[in-house]
Amino acid sequence: MTKIKANNPTLKSWVEVARTSDFPIQNLPFGIFKTRYLSPVAGVAIGNYVLDLVYLHEHGYLDGLSLPAGMFHQQYLNDFFALGRAKVREVRERISELLRHNNDELKDHKADRELALIPMNEVQMQLPVKIPNYTDFYSSEEHATNVGSMFRDPKNALLPNWKHLPVAYHGRASSIVVSGTNLHRPKGQIKPIDSDQPIYGPSRKLDFELEMAFITCKETKLGHPIHIHEAEEYIVGFVLFNDWSARDIQQWEYVPLGPFLGKNFGSSISPWVVTLDALEPFRVQGPEQYPHVLPYLVTEGAKNFDIVLEASMKAEQGEDAIVCRTNFKYMYWNIHQQLAHHTVNGCNIQVGDIYASGTISGPSPGSFGSLLELTWNGQKTLHLADGSERTFILDGDSITLRGHASKDGVRIGFGECTGKILPALK
Amino acid sequence: MTKIKANNPTLKSWVEVARTSDFPIQNLPFGIFKTRYLSPVAGVAIGNYVLDLVYLHEHGYLDGLSLPAGMFHQQYLNDFFALGRAKVREVRERISELLRHNNDELKDHKADRELALIPMNEVQMQLPVKIPNYTDFYSSEEHATNVGSMFRDPKNALLPNWKHLPVAYHGRASSIVVSGTNLHRPKGQIKPIDSDQPIYGPSRKLDFELEMAFITCKETKLGHPIHIHEAEEYIVGFVLFNDWSARDIQQWEYVPLGPFLGKNFGSSISPWVVTLDALEPFRVQGPEQYPHVLPYLVTEGAKNFDIVLEASMKAEQGEDAIVCRTNFKYMYWNIHQQLAHHTVNGCNIQVGDIYASGTISGPSPGSFGSLLELTWNGQKTLHLADGSERTFILDGDSITLRGHASKDGVRIGFGECTGKILPALK
Repeated sequence: MTKIKANNPTLKSWVEVARTSDFPIQNLPFGIFKTRYLSPVAGVAIGNYVLDLVYLHEHGYLDGLSLPAGMFHQQYLNDFFALGRAKVREVRERISELLRHNNDELKDHKADRELALIPMNEVQMQLPVKIPNYTDFYSSEEHATNVGSMFRDPKNALLPNWKHLPVAYHGRASSIVVSGTNLHRPKGQIKPIDSDQPIYGPSRKLDFELEMAFITCKETKLGHPIHIHEAEEYIVGFVLFNDWSARDIQQWEYVPLGPFLGKNFGSSISPWVVTLDALEPFRVQGPEQYPHVLPYLVTEGAKNFDIVLEASMKAEQGEDAIVCRTNFKYMYWNIHQQLAHHTVNGCNIQVGDIYASGTISGPSPGSFGSLLELTWNGQKTLHLADGSERTFILDGDSITLRGHASKDGVRIGFGECTGKILPALK
Repeated sequence: MTKIKANNPTLKSWVEVARTSDFPIQNLPFGIFKTRYLSPVAGVAIGNYVLDLVYLHEHGYLDGLSLPAGMFHQQYLNDFFALGRAKVREVRERISELLRHNNDELKDHKADRELALIPMNEVQMQLPVKIPNYTDFYSSEEHATNVGSMFRDPKNALLPNWKHLPVAYHGRASSIVVSGTNLHRPKGQIKPIDSDQPIYGPSRKLDFELEMAFITCKETKLGHPIHIHEAEEYIVGFVLFNDWSARDIQQWEYVPLGPFLGKNFGSSISPWVVTLDALEPFRVQGPEQYPHVLPYLVTEGAKNFDIVLEASMKAEQGEDAIVCRTNFKYMYWNIHQQLAHHTVNGCNIQVGDIYASGTISGPSPGSFGSLLELTWNGQKTLHLADGSERTFILDGDSITLRGHASKDGVRIGFGECTGKILPALK
């Protein structure tokens, strides 16, 4: 593994970055924003600013990187990511150079500096990629065990296949929205316990799911699996992912073909794609896997990531209060295994695909990544900061996911993935 | 319902069309083909010819239709379909006029006629649309009953939700290929009956599924359901759909989140999009629905289509032999209900989405739309024309789906949806 210079913990930027910021010079995530341009463009987050990549590119700051003209003046990052991990890394390294406290190229060019750095509160973040395909895994043992205990049998909570393969299903790409997009409470068919007929109405068990998702930067040809040792070439970075779920709709519809309308009314992602490169220092060993996995799924070394995650809830007039704290490192199945398994049958992947982890729950009740688990399907009550109580999400409630990795005084964060639930339409 | 002139059964074309052709002047389906152009372009099928829409457009034959420049010089039909059903209808009506035996505009212009009409055997058909999302329904009562009987309980073959909502799941858009694309036998995890551990290897239970699929031509906004009375505005036409399935992979993986690698190694569609307009004369009443469906799913009148369907199988050196004959009219849930249900929770649809019916089985054993049902999961044997036997698909076997509607001497066909299974890689 090449040492990534941009990750050096001693680096400082001439842009002021608060110690609690998610976006120090060691992070430099990519995103798409709107502001002075009519159309969306690509940028990089640094402290409370967005660095305009179109401006840098057009004014010669990225010369020598052989970037195609117009590469950053696009609605999505797909074409940039499709240049491959090595090129994305070169751009990140160059931006790191430009922002270092001892580099005066941009710092000392007042006009360029002021035009290229835009205060984050003046921009509107957009969906970072056009998403051709979206898959949701189910890779947290604690989550699968909790759900299996609740709806099947606590003694045999995990189904027989669970420890042999990373279970997954296809989700709906069209309804993935960027953080800050509010969603209407979904309506649909619900079967009350005391009735043998379903009724039609708004979901009464609206939930969030705290997940992370990786984004692909390289396509494969149909029929050709990705070898597990090559999986990393295909992964450019991560976002936070909220897989909003209507538990009552899901429960009635999901047999035998899996979740559908209980999920596809909307999923939210954070706008900044934190690169796999930036997360290198935070690799940790995953849980031991027993029974042993089949050879095509064998990985060695530190393939998980130590990323602290939290979900918070805020009533319309209330305060934001954390309802869950967990960690990405708990994942039983790692991203290499997920991608190798997904393609073992020849299924082809495309640039910009989203692969979500499934709900990330930890071992303790406070670390469960959904209200379903936190309230044990409504049997317990959550107490919010404003004194109100919740089992599931009420109209006007906002859910915010946050996540960061930290080590040696460096904090690599994801920003926020937030969304508010509006009342059902009509 | 406006009378569609192009559907008049007395119409004849100056292009010779055999009585057994799928593509008389009353059909005029749209597709994308490659030949003399370097890039793919749009065309219409007539008899054994493809009518080049770029040539017609550029040479003034479509003047007055206000079509944007370059509309047909594209890799996909999405932008054309996005003009809406009324505009697609206008174009089809104009092409119908141009091809009528008593219209001499194109017929008598030898040079244009010879350049615009290309023999079908000189073109390579392409995927007609770029597919943002793909959903597979499970809407044939006979198929769901057969599968439920085999794998669960013959006395309670249908699950409790089945007659209340059109069950569906999301499939993989990236691996949908056009007819004529051969696929490698998928590999993956399989759990032999006599083992409690899975093994890794090529599927031994490779199957086809005979389906039809509709394609959408209008997008919706996230959160806004399609009212069942408006569903037709969103549907431009149909293709044949083969949902190749690896039953052994599927059986091990599918609980609790549904089919995944057992399906996503490839699905095949026929290249010609037969318009809903062309199928108007073939509307028939669907099966009676009891128990009564919820109000948002109530349709009245003839919402099914009488389309004769067949699947045939051909060994590498053998003859093509029909293994199943069924009909689209057997569908319990109609396309209006499918689209209204899919969006009842606000899930948004996009232009070019594919919505497949699920396997279409009829009431008699010869009308079952998959080998799983035809051989009752391998318990019975199929005898092919060359004397060989099959339970599931062997390497070198081709499967071809065909379909047509006929009435008043007019036959509206879909062409072929064919694919050959190549040996597993390496």
